[in-house]
Amino acid sequence: MNNIFIIGVGLIGGSFALDIKTLYPTCTVFGIDNSEKHIEEAIQLKVVDQSANFEDLGKADLVIVAIPVDATLAVLPKVLDFVSDQTIVFDAGSTKEDICDVVRTHPKRRNFLAVHPIAGTEHSGPKAAIRNLFKSKTNIICEVEETAFKLQEKALKLFADLGMRIRYMNPKAHDKHIAYVSHLSHISAFMLGKTVIDKEQNERDIFDMAGSGFASTVRLAKSSPAMWAPIFKQNKSNVIETLDEYIDNLKHFKQLMEDSDFQAVYDEMEKTNHIKDILNGIQ
Amino acid sequence: MNNIFIIGVGLIGGSFALDIKTLYPTCTVFGIDNSEKHIEEAIQLKVVDQSANFEDLGKADLVIVAIPVDATLAVLPKVLDFVSDQTIVFDAGSTKEDICDVVRTHPKRRNFLAVHPIAGTEHSGPKAAIRNLFKSKTNIICEVEETAFKLQEKALKLFADLGMRIRYMNPKAHDKHIAYVSHLSHISAFMLGKTVIDKEQNERDIFDMAGSGFASTVRLAKSSPAMWAPIFKQNKSNVIETLDEYIDNLKHFKQLMEDSDFQAVYDEMEKTNHIKDILNGIQ
Repeated sequence: MNNIFIIGVGLIGGSFALDIKTLYPTCTVFGIDNSEKHIEEAIQLKVVDQSANFEDLGKADLVIVAIPVDATLAVLPKVLDFVSDQTIVFDAGSTKEDICDVVRTHPKRRNFLAVHPIAGTEHSGPKAAIRNLFKSKTNIICEVEETAFKLQEKALKLFADLGMRIRYMNPKAHDKHIAYVSHLSHISAFMLGKTVIDKEQNERDIFDMAGSGFASTVRLAKSSPAMWAPIFKQNKSNVIETLDEYIDNLKHFKQLMEDSDFQAVYDEMEKTNHIKDILNGIQ
Repeated sequence: MNNIFIIGVGLIGGSFALDIKTLYPTCTVFGIDNSEKHIEEAIQLKVVDQSANFEDLGKADLVIVAIPVDATLAVLPKVLDFVSDQTIVFDAGSTKEDICDVVRTHPKRRNFLAVHPIAGTEHSGPKAAIRNLFKSKTNIICEVEETAFKLQEKALKLFADLGMRIRYMNPKAHDKHIAYVSHLSHISAFMLGKTVIDKEQNERDIFDMAGSGFASTVRLAKSSPAMWAPIFKQNKSNVIETLDEYIDNLKHFKQLMEDSDFQAVYDEMEKTNHIKDILNGIQ
């Protein structure tokens, strides 16, 4: 691979760029971003080598589309219009159904691989790019059979070099399950942050009392709204389903407390405690 | 200080013991615990020097009561019955109103300091005890004026040696605010864990998709139900208030999604984003 294009030089695109430059030192990494400031920052931080335009995509061996999922719906077909038959293009979006749909009948559909690397932090922008972000992380690939075999191989080689483990899934199942293990966590954190901040407007001392438990639980409330609002829009029905279940569970817990049934409160927590074993596999 | 008694040799009591043994190497640290196994473990791990009984408390210079808050209500008056006039006793419970109430008219009330160190992890038992757990952490002291001045000084010296920063508060305000910044976070994490685990019973692959964001948000769901059920019981009305507000915020967010008002969804998150600045002060 000689010419690698990163569309969206933020946390995800920038972190891919940094590792790619280490793995394939002879390649040139081009950055495309609609923020001139981000491109300049990315070049200055040596996240990418140089700036580029869509017209340059013809010479690309690999294109990574790492922008908010609403922008992906507009940009991805345009990228496929520009690339050559030998180019592999993959996205990194947290939704897969709408993205797969938008290129379903594109003449270059077989140049595209639908990818969701389960990796990230709550930070954003080129400064948030870090090395080894993808190491040992799960990478979900959807509709792999729709991608040309020879081009799949190029992407899979990169994922293997990055140390990722691959899971294959259909876009519908991806969007349904990711709503539970990722999208709901973000709403839970944002609303926890909101609940406490609303209180704090009158009670300035409250955050002095906050410890590392609170910090951990609301960490995701630092995430970028520009990234997350489009995800919730594209995964609306699944996310609403998880919210319904979450709200029901909270109401049930509250009812047990109102009934002063603290044995049942204990049991609720005890039943969930085995999340320990589940989480051991994650961190 | 020569003889220091730790009642409850778990995460909090054990962590105090470890630091105290480093700070005051000539003292003897005695452990009292209703679990014989925990006492043996604590001695083996050199968390405490030896086992003791309530009858030995007469020789104590300092007693730390670090047990679930329901047990504290029963044990604390008994401890005060046994100690000498020169002994300072403090607790470490996450509720303060009921605990202050139970000793309000005790003849040795002035030997007691009501304390809540904002420190801990999601682990429990003697094995969870770690050094420097309290360093740079907030320590909330309630009703300080009810404690004999000379005895306060002993405890404050220890907290200063541990590197803690002190905040004074009345028990009512403590319980109200801590419900927001600590108790609610735990319920939010437990119910998030429950929501996802309930789903997982049918969908085994779901946790393969979970990343560090999910792990961080549900971390507190590993916490001990034996510690937390009594906290929720003692802080029932405050916790129910926070749950009401949290559930209302989640329902409002869901409503915005149902209305497809994703600009408002964006704004909700954007308004909460400044939690960044608030959290910078915590971790």
